[in-house]
Parts: sequence; C-alpha cells; structure tokens
Amino acid sequence: MKAEGGWAGICTEYAPVGLDSDESPYISAQLWDDEDLGNLALMVDAVHEHGSLAGLELTHSGVHAQNAETRWPAVAPSQLAGDYHPIIVPKAMEHADIRRVQADWVRAAKQAQTVGFDIVYVYGGHSYLLTQFLSPFYNKRTDEYGGPLENRARMWLETLELVREAIGDDCAIAVRVGVDLTPGIQVDEALEFVRLADHLVDLWDVNVGSIIEWSKDSGVSRFHPEGYQLEWTGRVREATAKPIVGVSRMTNPDRMAEIVRSGAWDIIGAARPSIADPFLPKKVEEGRYGEVRECTGSNMCIAKADTKMHLGCIQNATAGEEFRRGWHPERFEPAANRDRDVLVVGAGPAGMECAIVLGKRGFGRVHLVEAEAEPGGCMRWIPQLPGLGEWGRVVNWRRVQLDRLKNVELLTGTRLSAQGAREYGAELVIVATGSSWAMDGLNAFTHEPIPGADAALSHVLTPEQVMLEGKRPTGESVVVYDGEGYVVAAGLAELLALEGFRVELVTPFDVVAPSCDETLEGPALRRHLHDVGVTMRRNHTVAAVQQGRVELESDFGEAAELEADSVVLVTQRLSDDALYRELVGDPEALAAEGVEAVYRAGDCVAPRVVADAVFDGHRLAREIDTGNPAVPLPHRRELPAAARPVA
Amino acid sequence: MKAEGGWAGICTEYAPVGLDSDESPYISAQLWDDEDLGNLALMVDAVHEHGSLAGLELTHSGVHAQNAETRWPAVAPSQLAGDYHPIIVPKAMEHADIRRVQADWVRAAKQAQTVGFDIVYVYGGHSYLLTQFLSPFYNKRTDEYGGPLENRARMWLETLELVREAIGDDCAIAVRVGVDLTPGIQVDEALEFVRLADHLVDLWDVNVGSIIEWSKDSGVSRFHPEGYQLEWTGRVREATAKPIVGVSRMTNPDRMAEIVRSGAWDIIGAARPSIADPFLPKKVEEGRYGEVRECTGSNMCIAKADTKMHLGCIQNATAGEEFRRGWHPERFEPAANRDRDVLVVGAGPAGMECAIVLGKRGFGRVHLVEAEAEPGGCMRWIPQLPGLGEWGRVVNWRRVQLDRLKNVELLTGTRLSAQGAREYGAELVIVATGSSWAMDGLNAFTHEPIPGADAALSHVLTPEQVMLEGKRPTGESVVVYDGEGYVVAAGLAELLALEGFRVELVTPFDVVAPSCDETLEGPALRRHLHDVGVTMRRNHTVAAVQQGRVELESDFGEAAELEADSVVLVTQRLSDDALYRELVGDPEALAAEGVEAVYRAGDCVAPRVVADAVFDGHRLAREIDTGNPAVPLPHRRELPAAARPVA
Repeated sequence: MKAEGGWAGICTEYAPVGLDSDESPYISAQLWDDEDLGNLALMVDAVHEHGSLAGLELTHSGVHAQNAETRWPAVAPSQLAGDYHPIIVPKAMEHADIRRVQADWVRAAKQAQTVGFDIVYVYGGHSYLLTQFLSPFYNKRTDEYGGPLENRARMWLETLELVREAIGDDCAIAVRVGVDLTPGIQVDEALEFVRLADHLVDLWDVNVGSIIEWSKDSGVSRFHPEGYQLEWTGRVREATAKPIVGVSRMTNPDRMAEIVRSGAWDIIGAARPSIADPFLPKKVEEGRYGEVRECTGSNMCIAKADTKMHLGCIQNATAGEEFRRGWHPERFEPAANRDRDVLVVGAGPAGMECAIVLGKRGFGRVHLVEAEAEPGGCMRWIPQLPGLGEWGRVVNWRRVQLDRLKNVELLTGTRLSAQGAREYGAELVIVATGSSWAMDGLNAFTHEPIPGADAALSHVLTPEQVMLEGKRPTGESVVVYDGEGYVVAAGLAELLALEGFRVELVTPFDVVAPSCDETLEGPALRRHLHDVGVTMRRNHTVAAVQQGRVELESDFGEAAELEADSVVLVTQRLSDDALYRELVGDPEALAAEGVEAVYRAGDCVAPRVVADAVFDGHRLAREIDTGNPAVPLPHRRELPAAARPVA
Repeated sequence: MKAEGGWAGICTEYAPVGLDSDESPYISAQLWDDEDLGNLALMVDAVHEHGSLAGLELTHSGVHAQNAETRWPAVAPSQLAGDYHPIIVPKAMEHADIRRVQADWVRAAKQAQTVGFDIVYVYGGHSYLLTQFLSPFYNKRTDEYGGPLENRARMWLETLELVREAIGDDCAIAVRVGVDLTPGIQVDEALEFVRLADHLVDLWDVNVGSIIEWSKDSGVSRFHPEGYQLEWTGRVREATAKPIVGVSRMTNPDRMAEIVRSGAWDIIGAARPSIADPFLPKKVEEGRYGEVRECTGSNMCIAKADTKMHLGCIQNATAGEEFRRGWHPERFEPAANRDRDVLVVGAGPAGMECAIVLGKRGFGRVHLVEAEAEPGGCMRWIPQLPGLGEWGRVVNWRRVQLDRLKNVELLTGTRLSAQGAREYGAELVIVATGSSWAMDGLNAFTHEPIPGADAALSHVLTPEQVMLEGKRPTGESVVVYDGEGYVVAAGLAELLALEGFRVELVTPFDVVAPSCDETLEGPALRRHLHDVGVTMRRNHTVAAVQQGRVELESDFGEAAELEADSVVLVTQRLSDDALYRELVGDPEALAAEGVEAVYRAGDCVAPRVVADAVFDGHRLAREIDTGNPAVPLPHRRELPAAARPVA
C-alpha cells in the first residue's frame, strides 16, 4: 500500500538474521529459513509492481532478544544483564558466536538478493547487537573487539565487509545507526564510526535513541516536535558524502523540502507518517497538501503493534486492515444502498469518520448533525490537555474532508430528540453520540460508585466539567483519581498543577498512566508530572470522598486519608446511548417515519481509545450494505503463506 | 502426549466461541471458523489414538477480552470497566448480542461434535462471560438477565439448553464453574447454581478464583499447598450426584485416591501436574510412584505461556518441545557416539539433567562430578528461601533418576581443575558449573559495579553468602537491592525480616519483583512482604554503598539516602566459566589427553531461570551426536495446518 502511495523505498520491519535474535512475543519480520524468505518474496513483488525499491532491515538484537520461542541464550559482547530486560543475562560472545552471527547475516543477505530485495541493511540502530559492540556501555571486552573505537567497530565493519563480498554491487547496503544513544554513544563518536565504515555503505539511515529510551526514537508529539532529531542527525553530513535518510515524524512538505535543500538529509524517512497516510508522497506530488492525513504523534500505532500484536492508527482506520478487511485507504466501493438518505447523529471521531466514508461510498445525502456548536466530540477538549495539541489533527483532517464532500452536510448546534431523529427524513440513522465520564466515581475496581463522589457538588469534578464547562476545583489542593491509566487523568493533573493547584494523582495501578508505557511516553510523562509539581500515589483506590478529605485504601488493604479540597474523577466512561435506546425501543414509530434501520458507532457502543472509535465509524460505513451492519464482518485471517516458490 | 501418558480425558485450552472473545495477544484455542476446526480435528484424532477422550473448552471471555486482533468491542452484561483491563469498557449486551453469543456457542459445539470431540464445555470458570452474568459484581442488569439468581443464571442455563438441543446425547456437556470468586460469587450461591443447572450437565468441573486474582486458581506452592481448593470445591457434592472433576495441583497418588474415595470429586483434574509429567497416570498405574516428576508450583509454565507465548516447565524440559524438537518425555534415541565416555562437571539443574539424558541415550559411562558435598547447584539454596520448598523437587526427582541409571555415576565433593578434567579419562567434557551473583553490584542499569559495594566487606552480602555461608548482615537495618526482579531478592528480604532484621527492599523496577507477576504470585507476594514487615522502595537505583548508609537515585534523577547497616546485592549473576575457558583455551592439552570436545550447559553459558537451565542441559544431551552440539538445532516452526479435511 505504501508503494502504491508513492513511497520510493519500502523497508520491512526489523528482520533478525538468526535464531538467537528471536523477538517473540513481539512481532518481527524474520529471515531464519526458506519459509520466511517465501513470505518476504511476496512483499518484494508487491513493492516492485508499484515501481518502488524494497529494503530488508536485517538485524540482530543481541542482549535485548528474549528468545522466548527459540530458547537460545541471548548473546552480547559482554555478560552484562540487559537494560531492556534485566532478568536476561547474555552469553558473552565467543569468537565462534561472532563468526556464526556474521555468517547468518551473509546467508540472509544473499537470500534477500535472490528474491529481489534492492536494499539490505546491516542494521544496528537503537542499541541492537552491532551497536552493543560499538558502545562502551555494552562492550567491556578486552580482546580485539573491545577497547578503542576501531576495536568496538570491528564487529560491524567485518559484517559489512562480508555482506559486501557476498552480494556485490547489485544490491545496496544500508546501515542504520543511532547517532545519540545515551549512555554509550554520543554524536561525535558516531560520526567517527560513519567515517570508518563509509566506504562499505551505500546509504546511511540515521536516528537517535536506544530501545531503553525508545521514546526518543519514536517521540510522541507531547515531547518531540516534527524534525527534532535533526539536532543530532543533521550533523551526519560532516562525516559522509553518501546519501543520508533521516526520520523525525515529518509530515510537512515544505519542511521536508527545506531539509533536503539544506543538504542535511537526502531522503525523508517515515514510519509513523506513512502509517497515518500511506499516500502522503502521492498527495504531495499532486499538490494535494490539505489531504495529507498527518500523524498526530500519539504513538497508538506502537501501542497496538507492540503490546496488542496488531497495528492500528488514530488517524487512519485502514492501517493494518488492507489485507484483513480489503480496505484501501483511498478507494471506496459504491454502496449498494446508496440511494438511501443517512442521518449520522454526533460529529465526534466516529461520527465524522462514518459520514466521510459514507460520502465516499456515494450516498446521495448524508447529514452529520451535532448538538454542540463545534464538531469533534471528546476531541474538542482532549487536544486542549497539555502537550496533546497535535491530536487535533484528527478533527482538522476530517473537517477538510467534510468540506470537500458535496453529498455530506455537517450541521452543528442541533440537538436531535428521538422524535427529531425519526422525523429527519433519513431511511438510515446512525447514532454516534459518544460517551461521558462517570459523575459518581463508578470504576473498574469496585464496580460501584464511590460514596460521596457526586459531580453535582462543587468539590467533585469530571473531565468534561473541567475542560468544557470551565468548572474548577474549590480550594487549593486537589486529588485527581485515575482509574483508567491513559492520558486524561495525567493531563488534567498537569493542567491543574500549571494553574496553581496543589495536585496529587492517586491511582490503583502499579504505575501512573500504565497505558502511556505502551505509547512509549510513560517514563518521560511521569518525570514531567513530577517536574511540574504533581505528587503521585500508586496502588491506592479511593474508598470515599468527603468535604476536605479523601479516604483511600491501599493494595495491602490498609486505610489512608488525604487532605484534599476537591477531587477530579477519572474513573470510567459510560456510553451516551439514551437516544439510541429510545429509537430502537420503539420500532413502530421508526417504521411510521420510514426509518429502515438504526445503528450506532464509536463510544456510544462502548467507550474506547480514539483510534478504535474512528475504526468503528469507518467499519460501519464500509459495511453499511451488508446483511447486518451492526455485526462486523469477520476479517480475513493472516496465515503464513509462502505462495511464491523461492528460486 | 498426555493421552499417551494415560490421562483419561484431554481438554484443549480455552477456546473462545466468537470474534468478540479474542484473547490475543494471549494464545488460545479458537473455534471461529473451519480453519480452526481443522486444527482442532488433528488434536482429537491424536487423543483418540491413545484411547482417551477429547474435550473442548468452549468459552467466551466477555469484558476480559481485549479483542486486539478482531477489534470488536468487548461485551458484558453491564457497562462496567473491566477489572482485568480497566481501560476496556464493554458494550452492555443487547438481547441481540445474547442471542448471537449463544448461537456462536451452538455452532461451535456442533462443529466440535462433527470432528469427534467427546466433551464440549459451556465454560464459565474464572470470571468469564457466563460467570459475569451469574455474578452481581459484573451483572447490574434490570431485565430478565439481572437481579435474583434465577435471572443471573438465565444466560448460562439458556446456553446449556441450546447446546444440549443441538448436540443431543452423544457428546457430553461439561460446565466449569468457579465456586468461590470474591467479589461476586461465594460457595453457597455457586451451589445454588449447580442445582439449577444440574439436569443439563454431564460433568461438573469446579475450581476457585477469578482471573483478577488468578493466583487463587493456579496457586503457587509458595502460598497454596496441594489440595487447597477442596476447602471450597469439596462442597459441590452437596448439590449434585453428577461426576465432579476438581483441580488443585495434585501429584500425590494416595491423596488423589483419598479424595475420590471420600466422594468429594470423581475425577482428578490437572493442568500443571500434567505439564510437569505427561506420564503421571501411567506411572501411578504401574506403581512407579518415585518416577513421577512432580510439579513444583513455581508457575513458570504460566509465565512462559502467557507472557512469552511458548510453554516451558521447571521440571519437564520436553514440555512444549514435543512437536517442535521431536522430544518425547519418556523415550530417548541411543546416541551415535554413546561409546564415548562423558564427564559432566557440575551437578546443578543443567548438569544433572544433562547427565540423566545422556544416561538414557545409552552412553556407557557418564560421570557427573560435583565440587560441593551435595548436588543441586543453586537449587541447594533457592528452595531454602521462604515458601519455595517444593522447588526442591527439581533436585529430588533427578537424584532418583541418577540412582536408577547404572551407567551414570554421581561424585560429590570433588572439585576438578582444568588439569583434572582433562585427565579424567572422558572423551567428551561438559562444563555445567553454573553462575554466581556479582560481588560488586554489577547491574543492568549502570553496567558497572556500585561504588563501595564489595562483598568482601562485612556489611555487604551476596545471596550465596547468606544462604550457603551463613553470613549475616551487620547491625539491624539492611537494604536488599533487587536488580533482577524475580524470587531471590524478595525471598532474602522475607528471610531476613523473619530473622528480625529491619529490611527495606530497594528496586529500580516499577513494581517489586515484576517477574513474579508473570507467575501470578506478585500481588500476594508483595502483600506478604508487607505483612512480614519488609518496607519497599521502587523506582530507585543504588548509586553507592557506604558504611551505615546507601545512596539512591530515583527515576526522576533525584538523590536520596537511606540509613542502613548492611546491603544485600541481588543485582546480576555471572557465569562461573573459568574452567570452561581454561579448557578450551588450550586445545593441545585437550588433544594430548584424548578429549575430543568440550561443551558447556546451563548458567555457565548464560545465567537464566532454572527452567531454561534444565532445558539447556537436556538439549545438549539430546543433540550430543549432531554436527555441532554447541549450537542448538533449529526447532520445527509451528505453522497453522488444517491437514485434516473437515467433513
């Protein structure tokens, strides 16, 4: 899909060369055997069909590999417990291990060449094995592979030489190297390495950050603006005249052109922006800048890929669904029932996405009716939380799309009753009225409201009250109670601290905002909360709220008490499904008005992360002409298929 | 393998009936489509070959399903955020959802019958969907599915009726129900449910514990003795005359017979004991009690299956390797080089296992030589940590095996030098000398020793010094510094607290002993440590050790200081590989003595959990006659294979 979208080169994800670099339980490409090769061959062919180059990110994780499936010991230059998985203590590589890994690399590169890869990597970015040799943080060897830079670079240089010898000049060799990996490698030493290896390399792929501080590589927009990596990778030109590709969540075409013109990089690399919009290059080429679906830097793609084992995207509902559901990001089949008029109630993420896809599927008349003055639903206020401004792109992109679709009309400031919805004149009604945070502290831990927690009181607040109604805590001290563990409670805590309140974030979880660890922002977020003065108390539930104090209970069953003037309840959300229930509860009234079907989408069905709400609105519109659109069609299962015989 | 081992009935793991019960990223059986059915059919045929019954644990997880792959919303009786995954807020099931799930169950049960399953489950144990309906903790409905017990049981009873109607009497219907699930269901109400459903059920499968407190179901031996579930499940007979199967990590045949004779249960169920020894029933039947490889209750199987996606076992190295490596737990091929004499140096878990397998592979003479007075290596002292007594079974079983193998000789109290090993008279030498905890605080976080941390000093201790040498902290207050996150530091903290020391456990991790969460013992362990008086400080590294105090650094980069008389360093282990290095460093000397090859196994290669050390010893012996035994053979990849056409 990315090749079709105009990307000049398409790389696999990381592809470990050998059985002692087994990334399971994480998903990776692999080149362990012919079966793997057959799968990769399919990808090469598809990329070539669209005239792009195919690259294979051959790598070895060293001490970071858990080897859960293969059960080999991890290997590393020295026997230092892994900073990524401290329970893993690697085998210090013997010379035979070094030769074996190099031989694996050569074998894999040669195999890659046989199926037509144009670029093979000798990939050492992030802090994988080749960097572990290069870095004095990992490499404490006293033989010819340790000590001065020339020795620490030896493993990498030898591997490059062997691969070059094996594959000749028909296939390019790329090296990915992290040029700032603290502790271990700083940019000056990285540039020295680039000089040492330059004669063996066709393409330098440069970034920053080790997988221990992964968030520096795949930086969330909260902490890292577009182009932030240039501070380090912009210096690589000092050491090489070879082509350089850099990454930094680039979505702005002017900025891209400026970087290339400056000579800092020759090629703009992108993972996240190409997930958010596989057609970004085509759109830029054709001058359709406004249509680029820009990455928000929420890192939901990473959370889904790494911890849920299936990709997803807050912006692009088709990400990961191209094969599974046959969804093309830019092409839409005309709907069989497009002669029907459709009313979509609620212009939040799900409703907007649904209306857009219905519009693209050729419905003659789609009305998207929103009760509030502005569209966006929960995304009217979430981007107002500190650091989340770029999340606003979810609404911005959809407003542009809605403006362009002549058959879709957005009406704001219009609150529809059931009667109003029935009489609207549409045969199909889709309710996408979202969800709201519980007003009474209903939560996952007790499954009951919290005694004394009533957001009608002046000292008890919900997120919407703070963000939409301007309600503020009484007094100076406020407890933000987080029963969800994602961005809202942390954001409110920061916001109120910045406004001068004395904030304590209380949560039953082992860590503050555990879901933010999945998006790689957890450690930096907690440090940031600490820096802005938020105190944090983990492993405690709120047992009761009283005037001036909050009763807590610890994981150990012990009671505690906090002085607090106010409490913000971030416990759980509830679907705003009253309209839906009223509509489906009276089928005769629907029939009388010619309404043929009522569906719902997004948080109104079940509150969820924005990516999944957008997905749900998209899905309903893609399947609006199936037998029962309320029930998703089964997806196509992804089975290993070595359909192409390997030469 | 279990059918061959004599188990009368073999069940799949949990097999969700529909796409909104998608257990990914965890591994489950599935019955979503014909592809799944084809895979399950293979299992049925294999079970029937050995004359056992095949059972299918059809279930639905309700709110506990993350649906990461299918992307459906979770469903539940009421819209209460999930206590297992609080970020998941389910769809409150409409009547159409109830009918859909019931129809999925019927379809799955009928399909199961077509491929020959003898038993299908209407499984609601732990706190899955059917229990979510039954339990007032999850079910707040006000319709005919909520309220009094008859209503809360309706979903389950209807499903049973529908399945019974669909499959008739040729196939048994089993129900798994948790009879104590706090909060929600206590045993008296569970017995009421058993009475209500009894006429629809052929087999009651009873246990305790929800997946929220999973550790009560799959209890570690640390907290739960064999048979502990009888306290609750022993009462089910009050409510039914139908056959009852219970579980409780049973490995003692006399106790099993006693339970059956008592009438409490009719059938002994087992998951973990059947992983530790698939041939347990055959061995009991044949009176070979001493050969039963008893489950230790370490729960390493669960840690590996749930978080590493591949099964393993501390006792049974072949668990999960039957297909992948072709390892039969009871059958061993004669080794091609069995005419060689073998010396195994070091009788820890890896060395013992290796010597046993070599013995079973027909080597004429295997000598297992141990420097200490007792065999066991690290397992001489780990089972001495509070609560870990049953881990001693790892050594006990192996001692019995060694005694029975006439061709294997165990010599203790004999420390071999390189010279001694060379001259021993064996053509093959295997070094399994284990590992030791760092004496200087070397650790995963700084990759350096800790200033002032020197276990030669009286106030600095290592685990081995405490457990084997009887060294005790000076003074009253002691810091146990845990850089590993598994059982050793927590165990030492408890031990020293019980001896009267004032103990603070300091760890850089977000939680104390995070790896113990993988074995399900984490929450109970932390509560227990708290109860015995251990204070715990997370998210801190030890920056320096001084006389009377310890300098810390927090995750936020802030310095802190602790008054402490002594420090126990549990930072990382280092391979005791000096003998190996000396041997391989002088190939001429080896050749001169007729030594053909030197290998190493277990922690001496890379320190790891005991299960993996045992695995490594086993592997080396299984592959001792391959081209290069030092490098594991690749395993057979597990690919979905619907090899059997479905009728």
